[in-house]
Amino acid sequence: MKIPNLIGYTTSSEGAITFQTINPITDELYPELFIEATHDEVERSAILAKAAYRTFSRTSSKVRAQFLRAIVKELEQHKSLLTATYCDESGLNQQRAEVEFARTTFQLKAFADVISSENWEIKHHLDADPSRIPIPKPQLTKYKLGIGPIVVFGASNFPFAYSTVGGDTAAALAAGCPVIVKSHPFHAHTSYKVAQLVVKVAQQLSLPEGVFSHVNATGYEVGKQLVQHPYIQGVGFTGSIKGGLALQQLTQKREVPIPVFAEMGSLNPVVILPSAIKDQSENIANKLGLSITQSSGQFCTKPGALFLVKSIETNRFLETFKTVFEQQVAFSMVHPSISRTYTYLTKKVIEQSNVQQFVQCKSTKNCNLGIPQLSITDGQTFDSNKFLQEEVFGPHALLVICEDQNELEQILENIHGQLTFSIFHDEENIQTSNLFYLAQEKAGRVILNGVPTGVEVSPAMQHGGPFPSSSDSRFTAVGTNSIERFLRAVTIQKS
Amino acid sequence: MKIPNLIGYTTSSEGAITFQTINPITDELYPELFIEATHDEVERSAILAKAAYRTFSRTSSKVRAQFLRAIVKELEQHKSLLTATYCDESGLNQQRAEVEFARTTFQLKAFADVISSENWEIKHHLDADPSRIPIPKPQLTKYKLGIGPIVVFGASNFPFAYSTVGGDTAAALAAGCPVIVKSHPFHAHTSYKVAQLVVKVAQQLSLPEGVFSHVNATGYEVGKQLVQHPYIQGVGFTGSIKGGLALQQLTQKREVPIPVFAEMGSLNPVVILPSAIKDQSENIANKLGLSITQSSGQFCTKPGALFLVKSIETNRFLETFKTVFEQQVAFSMVHPSISRTYTYLTKKVIEQSNVQQFVQCKSTKNCNLGIPQLSITDGQTFDSNKFLQEEVFGPHALLVICEDQNELEQILENIHGQLTFSIFHDEENIQTSNLFYLAQEKAGRVILNGVPTGVEVSPAMQHGGPFPSSSDSRFTAVGTNSIERFLRAVTIQKS
Repeated sequence: MKIPNLIGYTTSSEGAITFQTINPITDELYPELFIEATHDEVERSAILAKAAYRTFSRTSSKVRAQFLRAIVKELEQHKSLLTATYCDESGLNQQRAEVEFARTTFQLKAFADVISSENWEIKHHLDADPSRIPIPKPQLTKYKLGIGPIVVFGASNFPFAYSTVGGDTAAALAAGCPVIVKSHPFHAHTSYKVAQLVVKVAQQLSLPEGVFSHVNATGYEVGKQLVQHPYIQGVGFTGSIKGGLALQQLTQKREVPIPVFAEMGSLNPVVILPSAIKDQSENIANKLGLSITQSSGQFCTKPGALFLVKSIETNRFLETFKTVFEQQVAFSMVHPSISRTYTYLTKKVIEQSNVQQFVQCKSTKNCNLGIPQLSITDGQTFDSNKFLQEEVFGPHALLVICEDQNELEQILENIHGQLTFSIFHDEENIQTSNLFYLAQEKAGRVILNGVPTGVEVSPAMQHGGPFPSSSDSRFTAVGTNSIERFLRAVTIQKS
Repeated sequence: MKIPNLIGYTTSSEGAITFQTINPITDELYPELFIEATHDEVERSAILAKAAYRTFSRTSSKVRAQFLRAIVKELEQHKSLLTATYCDESGLNQQRAEVEFARTTFQLKAFADVISSENWEIKHHLDADPSRIPIPKPQLTKYKLGIGPIVVFGASNFPFAYSTVGGDTAAALAAGCPVIVKSHPFHAHTSYKVAQLVVKVAQQLSLPEGVFSHVNATGYEVGKQLVQHPYIQGVGFTGSIKGGLALQQLTQKREVPIPVFAEMGSLNPVVILPSAIKDQSENIANKLGLSITQSSGQFCTKPGALFLVKSIETNRFLETFKTVFEQQVAFSMVHPSISRTYTYLTKKVIEQSNVQQFVQCKSTKNCNLGIPQLSITDGQTFDSNKFLQEEVFGPHALLVICEDQNELEQILENIHGQLTFSIFHDEENIQTSNLFYLAQEKAGRVILNGVPTGVEVSPAMQHGGPFPSSSDSRFTAVGTNSIERFLRAVTIQKS
């Protein structure tokens, strides 16, 4: 069976190149052949999106809210099929599938609620005053307008919540922007099944054709063609720094540059101060063990480096942490290539001079495992070796043992921008400490006595930090504020 | 007398290169020699700004409001000196100087008011709920933080309101970002006198040294060094498309790219529908005549192209407009080089095939004039000649006479992004017309029955349109919302 692209309301299978998806737990290939989108198909998706923009961006936001809610209804009706496909293709378990499914429908509903609120479109209004001296005051109404057709790249690690109708798509559609999804080839079935539902709903609601398209590809060409297309006005991407930077360069070289919101890699440093581990050693070890290993560590907020200061408390903590961590279980990662890269990188970490393996968990008989492991080094080694600052995507963290808090802070001065920065402490004045100030400067979210994974979906969430963790730290990728990425303001002036 | 750079709280005159400013009305050179900033001086300004950021970004916003208000007080105490210097250096008249002065102090006060409001820093707060199922809800507080040291380039056409403590500087300081001003060399005296007051106030309030620096230069090197400096985190620029694009390219090539808000050129199309000129011919002609010529047309919102449809009404309007426009007076432009470029470009416009001169006003005996003039062409010529879409900075507009409204709309489909788009009409349903939709898509502000000049400073104002009129249409350069350019959010999470 061949699976087509969805170009507007038409299925399209013009290409000759195909690919299949795999069950990463068993290495079993699924028989369906996904047909990669051709140049013509991509072109048509862009033309349709542009045409749809005219109408869709001016629908009442109530209509768009109805669209999002109808998608939720469809998703819920097909929940068992969708979560089963999700598990088959990603190797992630049913519980995770359900949590992510709930997050996805929650996000769609949250955007629907936001844009349904009274006068959502209006940002500000100023009444005219013809009698003002020296010149009359005009009437100004500033309202929100979607920026244009958006390309969303499915994320390998979030087949629901950051893919087909995930956060980026929900935000763009809520803003009145048509969306072209480039499905992630690791979970193309899941993506296609969701996409079919979106198209069905759009047709039922008589939305303009082109409000949503769905294209498949394994290589870079389709994505490149999309983000360079003059009709495309913005991009949402969640993935590697390399991928995000490539997109940013392509979009900046266009005749008309467009914004890319790329949520890229992050080391998510965690500082564990001696004061915190006096009494809380086991609690912190448990929290961190889970945070590093759950879903095989395939989270952009997974703690990648833990910073401690040489002390008796630290020694005790390390013992506890080792015991806790050894009990972690190895799971399959979302794809053989992800597992290969993880295995390669964890091996490379301990090949660096002055870095040792601290714990490696046991293997299981499943395929494509991400075997949980911890490495350990000293502050100076971490500071001088740039490779150690790179994200290792998977259930690994590097323990960095610093001489003292002074060295710890100096080292952290030199790290890149981060999505998150966590501090375990037991100090009253932590929020006026130098360490806290440093954390704010380096990250979009500072976590006190907690782990960075488990990103709450709330307007109070900031998911986006200084470069290179995000391409533009002034925006967030999680929470309803993320709609701001795809909106601009227009003022109507009348005398 | 030599005039130094202001590096933090220190005057610094290390350089060997100097320049002078000129009175453009008389071509008289002022004797003072401005010393261009050296590489070392620029470096020191960046180091001081970085150090100041740590403290300044965490001052209470009340303290920053106090800073802005104290600057206003100083400006007002020195108003006669400042406006006299302004007039001497820019050739703009006393009335304009006073309007712009008032706008500048109004902006500073408006930002002070905004950041003084209760809990301004807090964007959102979410209370913890430890009993939530399946996982406890953390406490989240999302607050605003300045992005870091900002470089502001003085604008040639707004020596007060978009230069030293103009909109960009006021927004950045309000946000908690230290500012390095690269003074505009056309009005370096005005800039230096304002800068001295800012430094005086900063010292009086014991703000950290480096919260404000002021450097002089005529070439590109100083600006280049500044925007490439790793300590600089953002740029504010008002000027030409060429200048804005050059800055954007430099900042995108950095190891850590930074946002540039460049407010660049705009044609500011004005459509005059036959329905509007039936009864309003004279009124519209008067408004447009003034809008094109006031302050020698040296506004980014000056109407640069007027679109009409062949008709009896249009013919009558053209006669009236000619009569009105002929009475306009030629003024000196802000600098000999601006006047030279204007003269060159207006000549080049009428050298294009199928373009004729329509009106040229009389000259006066002042130097460096911008002689008001109108050119005229047909729709097809405008559409096919890209040069005619470029901004002619000064009191010139091109009349484009289209065959019919259909041609007019097709031509306007092909124009670039614009700051403004004006429509003179007498139609009840204008806001659901295709022309109106087109206007929204092309511009940041749509003006109905009015002219685009005279930008109201209000939160309801949008001054920033699709590229290339601005580098990022999601932000505004006018009004207190412009602070968003220099802020990011940080969420503090507690269990």
